[in-house]
Amino acid sequence: MALIVQKFGGSSVADAAKVMNVAERVTETYKAGNQVVVVVSAQGDTTDDLIEKANEINPNASKRELDMLLSSGEQISIALLAMAIERIGCPVISLTGWQAGFNTNSVSGGARIKNIDTERMRRAIDKKRIVVVAGFQGLNKYDDITTLGRGGSDTSAVAIAAALHADKCEIYTDVDGVYTADPRICENAKKLDEITYDEMLELASLGANVLHNRSVEMAKKYNVKLEVRSSFEKVPGTIVKEVVNMEKMLIRGVTRDNDVARIGVIGLQHTPGVAFRIFSELAKEHINVDMILQSVGRGGTKDIAFTVTRENEPKTLEVLEGLKDVLKYEKLDHRDDLSKVSIVGAGMVNNPGVAAKMFEALYDNNINIHMIATSEIKVSVLIKLENAEKAVRVIHDRFIG
Amino acid sequence: MALIVQKFGGSSVADAAKVMNVAERVTETYKAGNQVVVVVSAQGDTTDDLIEKANEINPNASKRELDMLLSSGEQISIALLAMAIERIGCPVISLTGWQAGFNTNSVSGGARIKNIDTERMRRAIDKKRIVVVAGFQGLNKYDDITTLGRGGSDTSAVAIAAALHADKCEIYTDVDGVYTADPRICENAKKLDEITYDEMLELASLGANVLHNRSVEMAKKYNVKLEVRSSFEKVPGTIVKEVVNMEKMLIRGVTRDNDVARIGVIGLQHTPGVAFRIFSELAKEHINVDMILQSVGRGGTKDIAFTVTRENEPKTLEVLEGLKDVLKYEKLDHRDDLSKVSIVGAGMVNNPGVAAKMFEALYDNNINIHMIATSEIKVSVLIKLENAEKAVRVIHDRFIG
Repeated sequence: MALIVQKFGGSSVADAAKVMNVAERVTETYKAGNQVVVVVSAQGDTTDDLIEKANEINPNASKRELDMLLSSGEQISIALLAMAIERIGCPVISLTGWQAGFNTNSVSGGARIKNIDTERMRRAIDKKRIVVVAGFQGLNKYDDITTLGRGGSDTSAVAIAAALHADKCEIYTDVDGVYTADPRICENAKKLDEITYDEMLELASLGANVLHNRSVEMAKKYNVKLEVRSSFEKVPGTIVKEVVNMEKMLIRGVTRDNDVARIGVIGLQHTPGVAFRIFSELAKEHINVDMILQSVGRGGTKDIAFTVTRENEPKTLEVLEGLKDVLKYEKLDHRDDLSKVSIVGAGMVNNPGVAAKMFEALYDNNINIHMIATSEIKVSVLIKLENAEKAVRVIHDRFIG
Repeated sequence: MALIVQKFGGSSVADAAKVMNVAERVTETYKAGNQVVVVVSAQGDTTDDLIEKANEINPNASKRELDMLLSSGEQISIALLAMAIERIGCPVISLTGWQAGFNTNSVSGGARIKNIDTERMRRAIDKKRIVVVAGFQGLNKYDDITTLGRGGSDTSAVAIAAALHADKCEIYTDVDGVYTADPRICENAKKLDEITYDEMLELASLGANVLHNRSVEMAKKYNVKLEVRSSFEKVPGTIVKEVVNMEKMLIRGVTRDNDVARIGVIGLQHTPGVAFRIFSELAKEHINVDMILQSVGRGGTKDIAFTVTRENEPKTLEVLEGLKDVLKYEKLDHRDDLSKVSIVGAGMVNNPGVAAKMFEALYDNNINIHMIATSEIKVSVLIKLENAEKAVRVIHDRFIG
């Protein structure tokens, strides 16, 4: 007997038929002799519909009241899923975030889980019940309902798996696993049987869109075995864990991320502390900087270039313009016709030729590289947006075939 | 400075514009220097829509899960109303039933309020906040969300008014007060300035449909001053309290109730305990019996006739058929082409001619009476359905004019 946490997203419970489908999946696992805790998100477009209702009334509503509003979405889902499981004839209880013991900090709209008081879930599991928990939500110390922000339901599921020392946390989604590349771009893309937390983290932050980073970080921290699986097809998914067999692959995947803007600060005085000043001011505005390149320019000046998300581009330029007198740069430039293409693989740290092989694949196909960034398990290049899909394909062919 | 509890039903908050209208009403009261607690129901058809969603998945869902589902409706309303009040610029906080301290018994779907822990509401009021509370819901001792059943939001409002010792509890609805008769039937119907709890109870149970009985009973028990007012028009409503000026009216109102079925048990043995047996068996099935008539028939047998709601008619006949061998009656009859027309007034106890005056009005208009029931403040007659509206008019003309 294993304790398994299963998480189903909003599209998996979008209508009555899909709720019944999820109930079938859950009860199969239960009938096979397992203890099951299920985490669900709000149905389909419910959250968007609720946000629209709020905007009609007050586009500047407080986050506390938005959390009160939005958390009703998951409450509807858990009740409906519990009813579907009742219909199949298995014992079940639905629990809101606060009933399941989710204590969070007080940052409405993006709260962090402080701890989970698992007593009520444990009691229900001991009574042989399937426990259906509302994802995305908790309670702060003032007894206000909070929501966990983006990727919140994945995080709820992993947090429960960690708190209950579950044997596995299965994340059901509309893809059946993690692929070596986006199958829509690269027809040779292969589904991975296994991947490490670190690789998954790089893939998630590079735009693979399967699991949210917060949930993978938490899974790594508490050593929760994750599995990404399809809600609709009954096939094995991809397991995310600490150490995996490297098989024959040098790299685990190729991704591209088009949500990237490149900012250049040209002709900076070559004095110490300039780079520090730029990035500390951006950090104050909560702007994450990704790839960074510093180069010595003409006449003793230097240039600094870096990337931010497109959403942050205007704010970044505003901050830098405000610093013109202090930094004494010549000019700013910015472009958003670029894409970041990356390869990820825990194996590359021991295989020095990996980056060169990637660059060669691009060179052979006349794709210019604008910037390069590397970590121990990742190489990213900035290239023209129009070449992005082609780049994914040629790199994938070169490494994985 | 007064503490005022205001309750708005689902039709008053059905869309964004109506929510803003309610926010205006609430903040006007607040800006006039009062402390305000607002109770709201789920928006418009939300509850029906949620029930439909549940039925699609499981028509036999447990009441516990139905309560989990339905309580989300009020949670949406309180958040939206709080956002609307924020937009007007007044300090506000929304509270679910459990956050507001509603402790109920464990009868899911029709829970009774055991007590209200008012600490959190008090704290919010002390911070000069308008407090918006979800009606219709509470929490049982197992920390499960419960709903209060029919008329639940009215009851929530009165319970808060009682617990906070509020100066007044205003029930906003789509009519602007309590009338001497249904204005759609009787064009001379007058709005009452005041009415006693007991009169209101009789009117509510007789089909006046303005306030639910449970809320009036609770208001009477805790001496909460109620006012029935219009959500849309700013005119004084009808005040419900313990003692009112009798003015010149002998009666307070004329009502009719078409939801009535008459059951006859014909040719019963004239042995003791027969009536007791009938009504105790019906009580076991939770069937409320209203008017009762017992008469001695031919040959030492007797007949018993009584009324039930139409919904309960088939079940009632089933119970009686099951008792045929025990009761040894000749036959059952039943008809549902009848209506109950009633006059209500605390003054009639001191005016013996009231019933006679009512019967005379009916006689003068050739309307036959099938059954009569009286209490200290009420006279009801059962007449043919087709005569019901005419009866209301002629009785109203005779007493009120």
